[in-house]
Amino acid sequence: MTAGYETLTDILLKSDDIALVSHINPDGDTLGSAFALCYALRDMGKRAEVLCSDAPPEKYHSLMGEVPKKEPGFEPRLIVSVDTAAEELFGEALEKYRGRVDICVDHHPSNTLYARLCLVQPDAAATGEVVYYLIKAMGAPLTSRIAVCLFIAISTDTGGFRYSNTTSRTLAIASELYRFDVDFGRINRVLYLEKSRQQVELERLAYESMRFYRDGLVASVTITLEDIKKTGATSDDIETLSNIPRYIRGVETGFAMRETAPGLFKISARSGAIDVSKVCALFGGGGHVGAAGCTIAGECDEVRERFAAAIMDAYTEDSKTSED
Amino acid sequence: MTAGYETLTDILLKSDDIALVSHINPDGDTLGSAFALCYALRDMGKRAEVLCSDAPPEKYHSLMGEVPKKEPGFEPRLIVSVDTAAEELFGEALEKYRGRVDICVDHHPSNTLYARLCLVQPDAAATGEVVYYLIKAMGAPLTSRIAVCLFIAISTDTGGFRYSNTTSRTLAIASELYRFDVDFGRINRVLYLEKSRQQVELERLAYESMRFYRDGLVASVTITLEDIKKTGATSDDIETLSNIPRYIRGVETGFAMRETAPGLFKISARSGAIDVSKVCALFGGGGHVGAAGCTIAGECDEVRERFAAAIMDAYTEDSKTSED
Repeated sequence: MTAGYETLTDILLKSDDIALVSHINPDGDTLGSAFALCYALRDMGKRAEVLCSDAPPEKYHSLMGEVPKKEPGFEPRLIVSVDTAAEELFGEALEKYRGRVDICVDHHPSNTLYARLCLVQPDAAATGEVVYYLIKAMGAPLTSRIAVCLFIAISTDTGGFRYSNTTSRTLAIASELYRFDVDFGRINRVLYLEKSRQQVELERLAYESMRFYRDGLVASVTITLEDIKKTGATSDDIETLSNIPRYIRGVETGFAMRETAPGLFKISARSGAIDVSKVCALFGGGGHVGAAGCTIAGECDEVRERFAAAIMDAYTEDSKTSED
Repeated sequence: MTAGYETLTDILLKSDDIALVSHINPDGDTLGSAFALCYALRDMGKRAEVLCSDAPPEKYHSLMGEVPKKEPGFEPRLIVSVDTAAEELFGEALEKYRGRVDICVDHHPSNTLYARLCLVQPDAAATGEVVYYLIKAMGAPLTSRIAVCLFIAISTDTGGFRYSNTTSRTLAIASELYRFDVDFGRINRVLYLEKSRQQVELERLAYESMRFYRDGLVASVTITLEDIKKTGATSDDIETLSNIPRYIRGVETGFAMRETAPGLFKISARSGAIDVSKVCALFGGGGHVGAAGCTIAGECDEVRERFAAAIMDAYTEDSKTSED
């Protein structure tokens, strides 16, 4: 059932022993939202804990301060999930909470409304925005610590206020968070400006691997297991690399190939010109018109050329169709 | 003489034929501020023109819409400089306006107060912030076109709201600008996410040129004339590269070398650990403790090693001093 801020506030204020559940492979929004809500509830004298199947990435750890420690014997009596569109995203360690979620706070339009009460705001740029209003509605004071968590949630889900999901409201909230005595310059430095040596080295290899097709309208980038081994990069370092081709000026269709097991390549394709879900479907994958993926087995160069050829065919098909 | 918003508003409202002067090598702040003010004055029925010794970079052109065309025979009767700390920055083409500036609107603390009336706000993250308040004070309506210009001014001078000069007020202004029906996602894409192929290629070469010293506490990056020729990169593409070393995690002192003429290297150094102005002074340069520069003639590798050695000496000197 969908619910508003008032209903949720009533329940939260009446409850204790509250678990905030984050999704697997936690990002800034799910962690920042959970931590902010956890701190706010604790500031109101309640017992609250953040639960997540996976360990949070190091950089969030270092910024959000000490992780709320689980009290021994903490047994949640109210389960609140944040930024988690479906119960499958709880992960193995939190499987036992499936079917038992009291409140879900989210912004994903795809949310399956699995909780007893669901506050889903698809027009919010981040779940952090929803949590900001919820904390206000609860009458909990904003603190520097909460401001940091909410900033991380909102900033990371908007690419540092650069993506088109950023709204006037997003920036108004950020403006309010900036009133607190927090070194946001340092936070931005850690989140966006700093790179590890491994990351730089991997980026260099990714640049070297770039190929262009159709006079630069199509571009690819490839990361092999050898590249990852050579540089000692982590999955965190790899994630951003798949965006490289699509942000080259003039590129309409970009794809990133990443070797996930010897001779197995996970491909993610983006396009503003052709239907990449159709191209990926040829290799047993799928997705949306503008963003899709598939996995292809083979030798690196051969896989890349096969996929590039399929994209080229899609361009030809498209021009045939438009001639009809 | 320093002046407030009210005084300037009085004069601007009484004047006509107003020239807005931007500094040489124009950046987003000087252009966005000049264009915003120009549009606002025109919207109030006045003749106004933007003057700049250098052509604006292509990306600003494409975003700020048609450049305010100079009317034939336009002869300014009021000279207003924006974001220009000293008259030397007018450049050759606008030399004739030196000593004749009526109003200066700026945020640089180093402003030499060369104008008859100076509105300099060092606590503003960008001159665009000052212009925003000036337009409000003038009673000129904010429009989508002006919102775009002010956004470019404020956003570029704060590194897209990432640098530590960003304040709560900066974000509050951005929030108001976002109320206009403008595709800010596209603007951010052009300003921050997109790269040209030349830029990517140059970045790859820069990464290849990286050297580390003192167990990774010191890092360097080098761009040679050959790199620039090979990639067809422009000075726009080169600018951001000098930031690479300082944002490598663990690096305290970074320096970027750029060959400006055959065998002549312009070095810019940054440090959070040693006084780089002292190091640069050894080579006839100077600057601040944390950011300084110099020019050294010689063969590329030899210049780099000489400068790196001087940095290493500074580290040794520092540890000697602290042992005393």
